[in-house]
Amino acid sequence: MKTLGDIGEHGAIDIITRLAPSALNGDDAAVLYNSPPNSRTVVTTDSLVLGRHFRLDWSSPEDIGHKAIVQNFADIEAMGARPVAAVMALNAPPSTPVSFIEGLARGIHDEIKEFAAELVGGDITASDEIIVTITAIGSLGGSAAPLNLNAAKPGQKLVASGVIGHSAAGLALLQHFEGNVPEEFAPLVHAHLRPRLQPSRGMIARATGATCATDNSDGLLVDLETIATRSGVSINLNADAIAPTDLMHAAGEATGIDPWQWVYSGGEDHTLMATTHHDVPSGFRHIGDVGRGNTVTVGGKTPAHTGWVSF
Amino acid sequence: MKTLGDIGEHGAIDIITRLAPSALNGDDAAVLYNSPPNSRTVVTTDSLVLGRHFRLDWSSPEDIGHKAIVQNFADIEAMGARPVAAVMALNAPPSTPVSFIEGLARGIHDEIKEFAAELVGGDITASDEIIVTITAIGSLGGSAAPLNLNAAKPGQKLVASGVIGHSAAGLALLQHFEGNVPEEFAPLVHAHLRPRLQPSRGMIARATGATCATDNSDGLLVDLETIATRSGVSINLNADAIAPTDLMHAAGEATGIDPWQWVYSGGEDHTLMATTHHDVPSGFRHIGDVGRGNTVTVGGKTPAHTGWVSF
Repeated sequence: MKTLGDIGEHGAIDIITRLAPSALNGDDAAVLYNSPPNSRTVVTTDSLVLGRHFRLDWSSPEDIGHKAIVQNFADIEAMGARPVAAVMALNAPPSTPVSFIEGLARGIHDEIKEFAAELVGGDITASDEIIVTITAIGSLGGSAAPLNLNAAKPGQKLVASGVIGHSAAGLALLQHFEGNVPEEFAPLVHAHLRPRLQPSRGMIARATGATCATDNSDGLLVDLETIATRSGVSINLNADAIAPTDLMHAAGEATGIDPWQWVYSGGEDHTLMATTHHDVPSGFRHIGDVGRGNTVTVGGKTPAHTGWVSF
Repeated sequence: MKTLGDIGEHGAIDIITRLAPSALNGDDAAVLYNSPPNSRTVVTTDSLVLGRHFRLDWSSPEDIGHKAIVQNFADIEAMGARPVAAVMALNAPPSTPVSFIEGLARGIHDEIKEFAAELVGGDITASDEIIVTITAIGSLGGSAAPLNLNAAKPGQKLVASGVIGHSAAGLALLQHFEGNVPEEFAPLVHAHLRPRLQPSRGMIARATGATCATDNSDGLLVDLETIATRSGVSINLNADAIAPTDLMHAAGEATGIDPWQWVYSGGEDHTLMATTHHDVPSGFRHIGDVGRGNTVTVGGKTPAHTGWVSF
């Protein structure tokens, strides 16, 4: 089996730039397109650490590529911006199989092209464990404010695009069945391994009058509490609108876990959530309401929960 | 001793945003300033891996912060652009001392403010070894081409800003004396631990008509060979202009290493090198000439050398 140590840094760069090509790659730094007038550049970064965030017996290298892009592009979308480019810092031991690098590059390219974006550069460095760090660059057009965490207002609807709790259910199933999850639960496992981010939902929310957005990365309640605290508002979720699906209930029975736990504290779904005074934007659904106060409630009551913490 | 595990991700973020403050930090992603008309965004990323690129008994956390910014900003300057912002992905074990994070943030802030830039965001993730990945964002104003690796032209001067070979000499001294390097060699050690990048030299080179630039990161000859290959030119260095300094000769005697080896293959000086038909730009000196062909020579002869490779 050929390894990163065999082909070296330049060999790995050749593979990545072949499988995730960009005419902007290959100089000291990548020069992006001319910025449209009155636009702002948006930037965010996130690491995936092998073993902590993904297991190679569960996730394919392609899955990891998809997920690394999604978790970063979700943050760009959550500002109301359009992802335009990404760079990757890959830290990996010399024993890393070349097939891992190929799969990773393929996954990145498959995901990034959904957004008409490009992998424009990167760095490959020897390390003891595999860490994939993506930095995403977005473009925020026009003079309207970005969708800031502190800009939710009482009287607004809370709207969401994407599933809630599926990623956590998928992880619980993988853990419970030690990877051999029954086929019926494939959509949940898929949601964990390769969460889906619908391109342009952040731009659409901003264009239709939303003022605040975030993505469900650390857990629904934790992420909404951030909005509540930063905006000085309360958020009341509609229990029916966020209730576990039938498939999640079945997964709950199979694993002995209350599926509401996945809804409340799962995270990693990268559900885009926004607040707006206006009609529910295309691709979103109404899941709650913003009011005065500083609490996050479900049907007016405080739910018990915890969220993801790194340490 | 307090550790990252004690204070958690949010505690660490509080420290970093206090010591390296930016009003742009703290949302899902950072929204940068309005782009000037006809400007392009420039992006690059680089990791420093503890143990491979730095040793904590030699480098202070502040040094690491400085170096992480310099190695990225040098790539932005090498396009002729102005560094405006950076994000940091910090991978670190829970046992990492809080004092490390404080020093790192201080070093980043001290260096980044020399460029009137800001640390605008980041990510902190648990890992087994400490890895500091910086992604730098620059702004390339005006419609002139960036300083591309393929744009050197026969008849141009090769000009350089910054020391050549000092970083490698410093590293050799640290290795030879196991960290206890005699005081007389402090400038060389300092050049390794905290390489100096003069702000704005890339912009000045571009503004005064340079067409191509790179920084000495992998080794003088390796980096110039990249230009020679990509531009389809030869480069002949003037031996007197790149000759080891008296201090480097003394370090050579102390360590038993030919100081020309540091000049040729040292790297990590982040010397900015550009090619221009015009007068030597302010802050640069004339170190060689671009001609027809495809070789890199010194005084017309081929030197023996190797460069830095990651694997």
